[in-house]
Amino acid sequence: MKLIRFGAAGEEKPGVIINEEYYDVSGLVKEYDEAFFAGNALEELKEKIKQANLPKVSKEVRLGPALARPSKIVCIGLNYKDHAAETNAAIPVEPILFFKATSAIVGPNDDLTIPKNSKKTDWEVELAIVIGKKASYVEQSDALNHIAGYVLHNDYSERAFQIERNGQWVKGKSCDTFAPIGPFIATQDEIEDIHNVRLWLKVNDKLMQDGNTSNLIFNVPFLVHYVSQFMTLLPGDVITTGTPAGVGLGQKPEPWYLKEGDVVELGIDGLGSSKQHVKAYK
Amino acid sequence: MKLIRFGAAGEEKPGVIINEEYYDVSGLVKEYDEAFFAGNALEELKEKIKQANLPKVSKEVRLGPALARPSKIVCIGLNYKDHAAETNAAIPVEPILFFKATSAIVGPNDDLTIPKNSKKTDWEVELAIVIGKKASYVEQSDALNHIAGYVLHNDYSERAFQIERNGQWVKGKSCDTFAPIGPFIATQDEIEDIHNVRLWLKVNDKLMQDGNTSNLIFNVPFLVHYVSQFMTLLPGDVITTGTPAGVGLGQKPEPWYLKEGDVVELGIDGLGSSKQHVKAYK
Repeated sequence: MKLIRFGAAGEEKPGVIINEEYYDVSGLVKEYDEAFFAGNALEELKEKIKQANLPKVSKEVRLGPALARPSKIVCIGLNYKDHAAETNAAIPVEPILFFKATSAIVGPNDDLTIPKNSKKTDWEVELAIVIGKKASYVEQSDALNHIAGYVLHNDYSERAFQIERNGQWVKGKSCDTFAPIGPFIATQDEIEDIHNVRLWLKVNDKLMQDGNTSNLIFNVPFLVHYVSQFMTLLPGDVITTGTPAGVGLGQKPEPWYLKEGDVVELGIDGLGSSKQHVKAYK
Repeated sequence: MKLIRFGAAGEEKPGVIINEEYYDVSGLVKEYDEAFFAGNALEELKEKIKQANLPKVSKEVRLGPALARPSKIVCIGLNYKDHAAETNAAIPVEPILFFKATSAIVGPNDDLTIPKNSKKTDWEVELAIVIGKKASYVEQSDALNHIAGYVLHNDYSERAFQIERNGQWVKGKSCDTFAPIGPFIATQDEIEDIHNVRLWLKVNDKLMQDGNTSNLIFNVPFLVHYVSQFMTLLPGDVITTGTPAGVGLGQKPEPWYLKEGDVVELGIDGLGSSKQHVKAYK
């Protein structure tokens, strides 16, 4: 199943994609939020949509973030060797964790706003995990049972705020519009092998990132297990698994960053694509 | 006004303290959450409780966290010179920001659970700010208008997770029960001078921390201004302003940490006190 949220910002309704078409399921479920993921609602929805005569939704509609605001976005740092290398960082011996403010979440095709006083706004295509079941001290062998699905995420980052402003990374990860999440959440059964999907990102049609989750240093079950040793993951929480090489910070001979008018497009096999137009803060 | 939440965990109702007595205001407001702080509900409640005949609540009741789960807890690192010195850290040139998972929030007198595999669970008495109005790029001169009130917080920290586990600090700040918030939120008018209140913490009746907010490196209006340059603060969000000297990590000749059976008690002038019994993870 593919879950979308559609409509004006702040007034999104839940929907699903069936055979490339959008359908409204707000008559069946209220919201894709903690309560939805915590219960059996996801499994029930799979059954219900087989029988229901669902209202079709225009594909011109705005897509919102593919889930309601979660309790947290846990980010994994430097989880691809090539990205660690391009930023002159060591390969982590265990995952680096940081957070991104949930107030940064926007729809997949909403504009990116360059923050005030920013000169180093950068992109990061990432595979994000959506938690389906409360997870505390979860074994790796049980980790997949705690996942609802996967979603495309652009982990926008202001490198000066992140690295040059006296710590910690969250400072450069949390600006408004820095977390476009979507277009849709794919449930696990939609993806044949989550550790072998291509992820890519273009800036103004130029391919900047072209990676594959087969190169993740720490894989999906390990990450759920690992994070759950330090905090309880709640249903609907997001773990974003890190970005491959090709970010602005890693460009040679000189790093370069986003400016007003740029267009960022990104995608993951099986998880669709998103596109953000870059605006200056006004 | 002093806001409390009372009742069983997960089923708390809103209340107020008047002349040391607890009253139920669940007939007047639904919850102390983002919607409550965003609107005029706080001001309206002040008026309503003057006229209403409020049901009294036993003072034996369990107190919950003094507010509903916020979108984020922003923590300020090393914001007292004496604490920076005791941990051998430099005085920050600008605030260090990190997050604490909101899943760590508990009531002020709930037990502290030492996480699995923890040997370095430490205490930190802190003054926390509760945001009253959405704050983005706020001027220092306007910052107080964005504050609903203040509350006592114990920013529990697992020092090995925080410092020795390959980054970032959030890893040692987010375990369940690591954020007792309360007993109550005091609205700004309750505190004569927020920059001159004593804060203290005892472990097993021994005074470990004894500071004053007059020693904050970065003060309250500056912090709201500063954080709002990097992210939008939502109504009900919490900024916790850092801890003075006297944590376990700073003890001489050797650091020492909490163990099962210990009792931690802490307080801030005008913001009451809280007490946590230390349990092992079972």
